[in-house]
Amino acid sequence: MARTPTGAAVLQPEVTQAITEAVMWELAEQGYGRLSMEAVAKRAGVGKSALYRRWASKDHMIASVVTEFSVSRAAEADTGSLRGDLRETMQALIDWLTHPLFSRILPDLVAEDARNPDHGRGLREAIGGPRREVGEAMLRRAITRGELPEDLDMELALDVLAAPIYWRLVVRLAPAEPDYVDRLVEFALRALGAQGG
Amino acid sequence: MARTPTGAAVLQPEVTQAITEAVMWELAEQGYGRLSMEAVAKRAGVGKSALYRRWASKDHMIASVVTEFSVSRAAEADTGSLRGDLRETMQALIDWLTHPLFSRILPDLVAEDARNPDHGRGLREAIGGPRREVGEAMLRRAITRGELPEDLDMELALDVLAAPIYWRLVVRLAPAEPDYVDRLVEFALRALGAQGG
Repeated sequence: MARTPTGAAVLQPEVTQAITEAVMWELAEQGYGRLSMEAVAKRAGVGKSALYRRWASKDHMIASVVTEFSVSRAAEADTGSLRGDLRETMQALIDWLTHPLFSRILPDLVAEDARNPDHGRGLREAIGGPRREVGEAMLRRAITRGELPEDLDMELALDVLAAPIYWRLVVRLAPAEPDYVDRLVEFALRALGAQGG
Repeated sequence: MARTPTGAAVLQPEVTQAITEAVMWELAEQGYGRLSMEAVAKRAGVGKSALYRRWASKDHMIASVVTEFSVSRAAEADTGSLRGDLRETMQALIDWLTHPLFSRILPDLVAEDARNPDHGRGLREAIGGPRREVGEAMLRRAITRGELPEDLDMELALDVLAAPIYWRLVVRLAPAEPDYVDRLVEFALRALGAQGG
C-alpha cells in the first residue's frame, strides 16, 4: 500500500475555494502591486502556510486564480448555427468582462503589465490560449457547415469577437443597451464574412 | 486702451509645453494615483504656482493634458476612398495607443476608473467625443459616396474601428505583424458593410 509521503498534505477543496475568493477580492480592492499574501490569508481565514502549500509565490497564486476564473468562463457554445453560437459567446464575454470583481482586476493587470510587458505575456497565454481554442473550435464548426469562408483569418477573427465589448464597456465606460448583443452579432457576422447573413 | 487686468499673467507657451511633457512622464511612471503636483513642477523646472495658474486641480491638469494629447492625434483622413481613410485612421489609432508614454497612461486611467467609473466618464467624453466626431465625419463621407449603407449603426461602427487594436496590442500584448493594418482594414470594410469591398 502506498503511504502518503511525509509533508504531502491533502489540499482541502473548501480551503482552496476560500483562498481563491480572497485573492479575487484583494486583487479587485488593492490591485496586483499592493496585494499581500498576509491580507489574502487573513481574508480567507487561513495561515500563510496554506497559501504556500498551493503556490510557490504571489505571482503563481494570482496567475492560477485569474486563469482558472477566466478559462472556466469561455462559452462552449454549440447551438447549431453561427448566429446562435455568437450570441452565446458574446453574452459570456460580457459576463466575464463585466463581472463585479473581474471588471476591476483585468484593467489593473493590463496597467501593471503595460509597464512590464514580459511579465504579462505568460499570463496572457495561460488565459488567452485555452479561451481562443474554444472560440476557434466554434468558428471551425461554422466553416464545416459552410457558414464561414475556409480561408478565414482566424487570428483577427478571434480578436474581433472580444475587442468591441472590452473597448465599449471597460475602456470607454459606455453603456450596453438591451439590444447591444444582437447589434454586435450583426457586425461580427459581417466582419467574419458569414454567408447569407 | 485695454489694460492687462491685475493678476492675469500671460501664460508662456514654452512653460505650458514643459509642464505637459512632465505630466505625461509622471503619469506613465507613477500612474494617476501617485502623481503629485510637486513632482510635475520639479520635472518641468517650474514652481507649483505655474501649474495652478493653468489648472484648478490635479484632476483638471491631467484631464487637460491627456485630452489635448489624444484629440490632436485623431486622424482627419480624407483620401477619397473608404479603404484609404480606414488605413490612415487605423495607423493613427495604432500610433496613439502604442505611443511610448500613452500606452502606459491609458491602461492606468482605465484601471483607476474601473474602481470609480463616475470619475472617468467626464474624461472619456472629453477624449472620445471629438475623436468620434472625426471618425463619424469620415464614415458619413463614405455614405455620401455610396460606399457604406445609409443605415450604418454609427455607434458600433466607431467601436469596431478602435477596439481590435487596443485588445490586441494593449490587453493581449500580442504583436502587430507588418500586414496587420491591411488585414484589419479588410475586417473593418466587411463589418461596416462596405459595398464592393
